[in-house]
Amino acid sequence: MIKVGIVGGTGYTGVELLRLLVLHPEVSLQVITSRADAGTPVNQMFPSLRGLVDLLFVHPDEAHLERCDLVFFATPNGIAMQQARALLDAGVRVIDLAADFRIQDISVWEKWYGMVHACPDLVAKAVYGLPEINREKIKTARLIANPGCYPTAVQLGFIPLLAAGVIDAGSLIADAKSGASGAGRKAEIATLFAEAGDNFKAYGVAGHRHLPEIKQGLAGVLRADVGLTFVPHLLPLIRGIHATLYARLTRDVDLQSLFEQHYSGEAFVDVMPAGSHPETRSVRGSNQCRIAVHRPQGGDTVVVLSVIDNLVKGAAGQAVQNMNIMFGLAENTALNIVPLLP
Amino acid sequence: MIKVGIVGGTGYTGVELLRLLVLHPEVSLQVITSRADAGTPVNQMFPSLRGLVDLLFVHPDEAHLERCDLVFFATPNGIAMQQARALLDAGVRVIDLAADFRIQDISVWEKWYGMVHACPDLVAKAVYGLPEINREKIKTARLIANPGCYPTAVQLGFIPLLAAGVIDAGSLIADAKSGASGAGRKAEIATLFAEAGDNFKAYGVAGHRHLPEIKQGLAGVLRADVGLTFVPHLLPLIRGIHATLYARLTRDVDLQSLFEQHYSGEAFVDVMPAGSHPETRSVRGSNQCRIAVHRPQGGDTVVVLSVIDNLVKGAAGQAVQNMNIMFGLAENTALNIVPLLP
Amino acid sequence: MIKVGIVGGTGYTGVELLRLLVLHPEVSLQVITSRADAGTPVNQMFPSLRGLVDLLFVHPDEAHLERCDLVFFATPNGIAMQQARALLDAGVRVIDLAADFRIQDISVWEKWYGMVHACPDLVAKAVYGLPEINREKIKTARLIANPGCYPTAVQLGFIPLLAAGVIDAGSLIADAKSGASGAGRKAEIATLFAEAGDNFKAYGVAGHRHLPEIKQGLAGVLRADVGLTFVPHLLPLIRGIHATLYARLTRDVDLQSLFEQHYSGEAFVDVMPAGSHPETRSVRGSNQCRIAVHRPQGGDTVVVLSVIDNLVKGAAGQAVQNMNIMFGLAENTALNIVPLLP
Amino acid sequence: MIKVGIVGGTGYTGVELLRLLVLHPEVSLQVITSRADAGTPVNQMFPSLRGLVDLLFVHPDEAHLERCDLVFFATPNGIAMQQARALLDAGVRVIDLAADFRIQDISVWEKWYGMVHACPDLVAKAVYGLPEINREKIKTARLIANPGCYPTAVQLGFIPLLAAGVIDAGSLIADAKSGASGAGRKAEIATLFAEAGDNFKAYGVAGHRHLPEIKQGLAGVLRADVGLTFVPHLLPLIRGIHATLYARLTRDVDLQSLFEQHYSGEAFVDVMPAGSHPETRSVRGSNQCRIAVHRPQGGDTVVVLSVIDNLVKGAAGQAVQNMNIMFGLAENTALNIVPLLP
Repeated sequence: MIKVGIVGGTGYTGVELLRLLVLHPEVSLQVITSRADAGTPVNQMFPSLRGLVDLLFVHPDEAHLERCDLVFFATPNGIAMQQARALLDAGVRVIDLAADFRIQDISVWEKWYGMVHACPDLVAKAVYGLPEINREKIKTARLIANPGCYPTAVQLGFIPLLAAGVIDAGSLIADAKSGASGAGRKAEIATLFAEAGDNFKAYGVAGHRHLPEIKQGLAGVLRADVGLTFVPHLLPLIRGIHATLYARLTRDVDLQSLFEQHYSGEAFVDVMPAGSHPETRSVRGSNQCRIAVHRPQGGDTVVVLSVIDNLVKGAAGQAVQNMNIMFGLAENTALNIVPLLP
Repeated sequence: MIKVGIVGGTGYTGVELLRLLVLHPEVSLQVITSRADAGTPVNQMFPSLRGLVDLLFVHPDEAHLERCDLVFFATPNGIAMQQARALLDAGVRVIDLAADFRIQDISVWEKWYGMVHACPDLVAKAVYGLPEINREKIKTARLIANPGCYPTAVQLGFIPLLAAGVIDAGSLIADAKSGASGAGRKAEIATLFAEAGDNFKAYGVAGHRHLPEIKQGLAGVLRADVGLTFVPHLLPLIRGIHATLYARLTRDVDLQSLFEQHYSGEAFVDVMPAGSHPETRSVRGSNQCRIAVHRPQGGDTVVVLSVIDNLVKGAAGQAVQNMNIMFGLAENTALNIVPLLP
Repeated sequence: MIKVGIVGGTGYTGVELLRLLVLHPEVSLQVITSRADAGTPVNQMFPSLRGLVDLLFVHPDEAHLERCDLVFFATPNGIAMQQARALLDAGVRVIDLAADFRIQDISVWEKWYGMVHACPDLVAKAVYGLPEINREKIKTARLIANPGCYPTAVQLGFIPLLAAGVIDAGSLIADAKSGASGAGRKAEIATLFAEAGDNFKAYGVAGHRHLPEIKQGLAGVLRADVGLTFVPHLLPLIRGIHATLYARLTRDVDLQSLFEQHYSGEAFVDVMPAGSHPETRSVRGSNQCRIAVHRPQGGDTVVVLSVIDNLVKGAAGQAVQNMNIMFGLAENTALNIVPLLP
Repeated sequence: MIKVGIVGGTGYTGVELLRLLVLHPEVSLQVITSRADAGTPVNQMFPSLRGLVDLLFVHPDEAHLERCDLVFFATPNGIAMQQARALLDAGVRVIDLAADFRIQDISVWEKWYGMVHACPDLVAKAVYGLPEINREKIKTARLIANPGCYPTAVQLGFIPLLAAGVIDAGSLIADAKSGASGAGRKAEIATLFAEAGDNFKAYGVAGHRHLPEIKQGLAGVLRADVGLTFVPHLLPLIRGIHATLYARLTRDVDLQSLFEQHYSGEAFVDVMPAGSHPETRSVRGSNQCRIAVHRPQGGDTVVVLSVIDNLVKGAAGQAVQNMNIMFGLAENTALNIVPLLP
């Protein structure tokens, strides 16, 4: 059994990790920390876990995380980088669901995240946990930077096109839409039901932290810089990201075959039949990414539609997928979930 | 023109007052205060008011509210009672949309609201602003306690039955449901979209502040105490209250006629045809209360269905209705609104 | 392996059965019928099942349901009663998720459902599949009448009080609210998003088909008739029923202990701590019923709050629970699901 | 008073016309037709209109529409073209809210709408009712083709850029999102609450009827063909369209000034301050279009955000605006509406 600890268990990625790990046959959940809610039963905060999780939240100082085999950080940005070294030194493997280890260029990270990085040397050793790209490296990784939600949906949609070299990489457009759980379980006016409900808007058009992460990932595939316009929007739904991706084709290609072949071995990327329109609910609660590729009116613009559940493939599910790979388990262990529809 | 000031214009009742007053032909909006947002243009916080309201939020200390003819308090509980006396002394009329002047029994108020009342003598002079009950008193009132949202929907449903003496007043049940805007524009986790959306729950079953207000109002009609079980619930919608009311009939009566006659002269209470089921959206954005009365299977239980828009008839609209009465205007001035459906 | 067939797989209870059965270790899904959609891949209609279900919908005439060990009817009312006898005669066990076998008094059934019953003798042999009441009978049943969604939530809330004889059974009130999936996957204006969204209303106050079912069930517990006012409402959410139940206490009792003891051995009924307010989302996607019991202000009115997922414990989940009991499996096989929250 | 008739009053554009016209000081509503619901009181179908509209739906054969000054067609495509000539011949002016007269190239229309056009000569005489482009022609028009909802939002966003000649018109992208009311009040599974709620998807990526309408409108501004990729999506909200528009800048320009100057005289187009993100709710129930223009990271991609209420500026409101222009009234008569927020 893998002894697992979770740092920061009171947010949505935390409770989602619990939902997945509680039924994982190879995991023994050791400890869940919360500074503010230490002493509170986990299932009091999340009644969905009654009868399934009997732990109390533990203060980080008393958590003895070093006794775990693996620690997940489901914390705000800037926490994991403070604590990762000690855990790694103690032989604990670490998966950070926040952004601390995602950007290799430290100056870029510091600019977008507005803080000084505490351990640039660890960033260099971290593996970006997108299994469809980095599966081999993940197997032996000690420290995983779990990808962001938008970056997962956007990269999985663009990668086959970039890998095949069939689009103009200088003018990519990602029009992305996320459900409200993407904003986290934080007391804020902007994501109140009476504000975000029956409403839709773009945000962060001038610049969003996921932009450099996506560009880094795509550049890694292309082995050259990419030009990307990324516009995120807030959807009045709870779970789900839908990325609508646009690129200019530079040569004629059978797009459907290209995508099907690229992802033929991937359990968690589903290339839908030609003409499909994936719905966010078709992946609700599951680790799937569903993709459809279109070429409207046979023109030179390719349109890729990519959907994920932001809390699963976009966060906790991908983290468990990474854990499974790191520990030599079947990649879909505890992730064989039927999406909840309707 | 009535010179109007609004204290606390950054909440939902504040912006709703603005929506209604901006088109009111007899109102000149003088000042809107906000301690936290002084200096901010009102239409920056609420872009729906662009081109309609050009005022900035003003710090209360610089608001010169004493120059107004009427001041609305759209503030949290406990604010109006601190400021009302000075305004009244300066000849300004006051309508408090919060609860400071609603409960005549000061000890009851202090118990439910958890503070010492600052001006019990003013409570005695305040008029409870439910026009369907107190229209004559409102005409000459200097200080109005604008009713709560639940109390408006529940009282309007029960009053005809109590006034006619046809039910057992000792065992009333009000199962009430409110949209999320009823919780106000406050940063809180419980009313986040990702918490309150796609979800439903009761709350405050042990006791809710609107219970004593409803009981006081109904007792006033009956001229005797009533027994009431009041259970509020949180609906995943923005505007709307639906009260489902249950009482035991003590004598046979034509309920449809009783309700129609009771409200025959009321512009803002619509008794629907027998067999109707009023929808919250049928009053969305308007000052209407729609009511239907049922007697399932001809038994001795009467079921009343009563819907309002909590921000209009349950707050700002009723406040404007009270203002119209106080200033001798047609009661529906600026309230002749067609509900937004769908 | 249990060879299972599903008649009528294109509705919400059908796809929900598929969601649960697809991961059931003892079930071999043989056939899913649909008259209108014969030939269509199941996972084309429900992309959530891509990679999980490879069957096509089959025309009922070609389904060879007699080769199954168990057939679920996820059909409109009036279908199962036409086909059950032939299946039973062929040795197939039957679980009807519709209402054909729920009401023992045929004249009552025919009045509420507006048709002549095709096989009254089978009704007499059918077992009402509420395991918390009828577990022993279910074990040996050949034909199960799976309970309705409202009846499940309402009965589980009232039963402990009636069994203990502590309430006035003549004046029960059930104020129940259901999500829109309860109306089924049918093209109707009333349940369009633009009609049912951001809206709330009661319906069927004069009488609803679940009233006689609930009264029959409660009378069976009490061994005497009950008086019940049942008011259903339509919630703007997808899954979930919340029943708010009111009764008059006839003697003093520790309600919390009463409920905890009554349900102490039940895996799928969770009595929450005193003072709780169960949320519908706390059971989303799971077979749990969560219950809290209150006695507001210590008066003589007891308030029970009972929530279920209408498609799981209110339909497909309970059907699988019944199947597990009928076939001697652990009752929670394939039902050990963590609710999806948020 | 303008004598007005409405053909097809039972859909969302019909009830929205009623909402606006009922308070219009210069309109006398004469007749509302419905083939299926003749004889039904309008306010029985739409209780929001109780006390405001006392008409019954009238069968088209008995409507005497020729006695009206103006007839609105709020009908499915293909109806107005059958009836317009007789009305025009009788001296009645006509505004068609459907698509019958929108496309000047009849062969294009027939291809996209799948029917033979009944009166190509009238199409040639019809004026496309986008006042911001065609105000002068609308003043004297007898027959107005009221623009589609998407085309209104998309054209208003692109027009200033095309008129100024600052973008590459060959590779425009319009990523558009519409609320569910855009699908109309039709019994269909795809727009049920349980299908469209808590869900998001693209549709019609291969081709949507609004594509040729948008291209025609933009080509008219540019006086040359444009290349456009148009991807519509279905939002889980009731009212609102958000168009996110992308184009490549071909020369440096002060985008904010460009837009402000272009729309400086327009009452219903609000160019928001630089850096803004318009929300759909900021125009809910009103005839406003709000626009913001961005140039992310100072690159050569311009991003325009354009929001409207699809039932108002996207349909009934724009129709009333056209009527006001045609009859020499102030353009904002009956359209001076404060958006409903929250």
